[in-house]
Amino acid sequence: MSKMRRSERIVRLTQILLEQPHRVLSLTEMADKLSSAKSSLSEDLAIIREVMESEGLGTLETQAGAAGGVRYVPGFREDLGLEYVRKVGALLGTGERILPGGFLYMSDVLGDPMLLDTAGKMFAARFKDAGADYVVTVETKGIPLAVATARYLGVPMVVVRRDHKVTEGSSVSINYVSGSRRIQTMSLSRRSLPEKSKVLVVDDFMKAGGTVKALVDLMKEFQVEVVGTGIFMSTEEPQDKMISGYVSLATLREFDEQASQVEIVPGTYFSQEEL
Amino acid sequence: MSKMRRSERIVRLTQILLEQPHRVLSLTEMADKLSSAKSSLSEDLAIIREVMESEGLGTLETQAGAAGGVRYVPGFREDLGLEYVRKVGALLGTGERILPGGFLYMSDVLGDPMLLDTAGKMFAARFKDAGADYVVTVETKGIPLAVATARYLGVPMVVVRRDHKVTEGSSVSINYVSGSRRIQTMSLSRRSLPEKSKVLVVDDFMKAGGTVKALVDLMKEFQVEVVGTGIFMSTEEPQDKMISGYVSLATLREFDEQASQVEIVPGTYFSQEEL
Repeated sequence: MSKMRRSERIVRLTQILLEQPHRVLSLTEMADKLSSAKSSLSEDLAIIREVMESEGLGTLETQAGAAGGVRYVPGFREDLGLEYVRKVGALLGTGERILPGGFLYMSDVLGDPMLLDTAGKMFAARFKDAGADYVVTVETKGIPLAVATARYLGVPMVVVRRDHKVTEGSSVSINYVSGSRRIQTMSLSRRSLPEKSKVLVVDDFMKAGGTVKALVDLMKEFQVEVVGTGIFMSTEEPQDKMISGYVSLATLREFDEQASQVEIVPGTYFSQEEL
Repeated sequence: MSKMRRSERIVRLTQILLEQPHRVLSLTEMADKLSSAKSSLSEDLAIIREVMESEGLGTLETQAGAAGGVRYVPGFREDLGLEYVRKVGALLGTGERILPGGFLYMSDVLGDPMLLDTAGKMFAARFKDAGADYVVTVETKGIPLAVATARYLGVPMVVVRRDHKVTEGSSVSINYVSGSRRIQTMSLSRRSLPEKSKVLVVDDFMKAGGTVKALVDLMKEFQVEVVGTGIFMSTEEPQDKMISGYVSLATLREFDEQASQVEIVPGTYFSQEEL
């Protein structure tokens, strides 16, 4: 391949970086790939970093030395985050979404590629320095969110099952009492998480926090540390949750099933202190 | 914001396009956002398209006229696809992954962000002209794959449940006989798919095809057309599947549980004809 012009190199570099968040890419390998001098690459990377930072898209971290490399660390602007929660609130806030039993239908919102991607980026930006080696969720509705978050953190995603499955091999199972006061099971393949790992727990919805608490307990069985908890939507009541320090994108104010009214406000993501 | 230099605009444009596959972006809006003339943008877009096409990353489709727009259509090079299958084959081909009952442990591979992302890109490239309005899968292990594929196709993702759930509202359920000859249930919220939609079905693993066949039957209940089927891994035996025309990334040759041997070869994705 012939030598690339600066503008061409910048397209390629931007693409390579954006597609591999948090992964350290070797400058030497990139210089080879693009048939360019490292000094030119460094100038290109400076331009890319400048645009990313001025737009609040994140940053590039460069590592000096013979094994010099560069890493794209996704960021997210708080004003765009608030705009996102308003958008989600407008979508979910129509009374038509209240299901019998007081549940809120939100499967379509978590199935929308842009809404999902943004939620993943927001969690990845918030937990960029938490040191998570894995993103963990429990089936089923938290999975898309965990996939999006893991993509932007550049770490693998692990799914805890509701039952022991033949396709997962030897597993560790625990029982817990769910919000509906039924005894439920969680099961995780022994192969899935190495001891001493650090994980970010992600889930779509949290009321009292029983499910997340059970996930944290299951992690203890694996001698794994939970370094953060990201929830798409948590309820305002009960205020006394079974876990503390969670980060929710949105808060669902106690809603009125009879009047078909729902109110969604920004979550703990936007508070100074995490609840 | 002051006027951007070409190289800065190219970073921003590349990022905007890559993050919204298949979405038509208005040239007028982008020109406003970047405080640039449309003529400059057109030149930038020509450079981006040239790099994408020469690298086999996809293309940009431009639409002329007052409502002129541009759309990033992800592509994927067949040689990189084969390299990908070889990599997956090397990971999965160690005998240690054979579980009792003849199952293959592959949850970690489908939880790896780069491996997952690539699979999604490959399916999106293959089905870019199929006209799918949604990507549909059945819980649980197909979900990450469906998320990745939906992202690169720019369409929503819908998850069929194994049971009727209170959080899904009114649902349509069907029964079917699984590969293990048990009667199983699939259930999908009536809200999830509008009539006359077109869907791409995605799943992680297919043996005889009973699950995918049931998904196709369920789609008929919704008066929804299946325009394609993408499978991460299909087995070589039985050769006579319950569905035809599927596209699999990899094929699992009948494996020897006792000798702990597994052989994985490129799937129908790489054949001239789809099986």
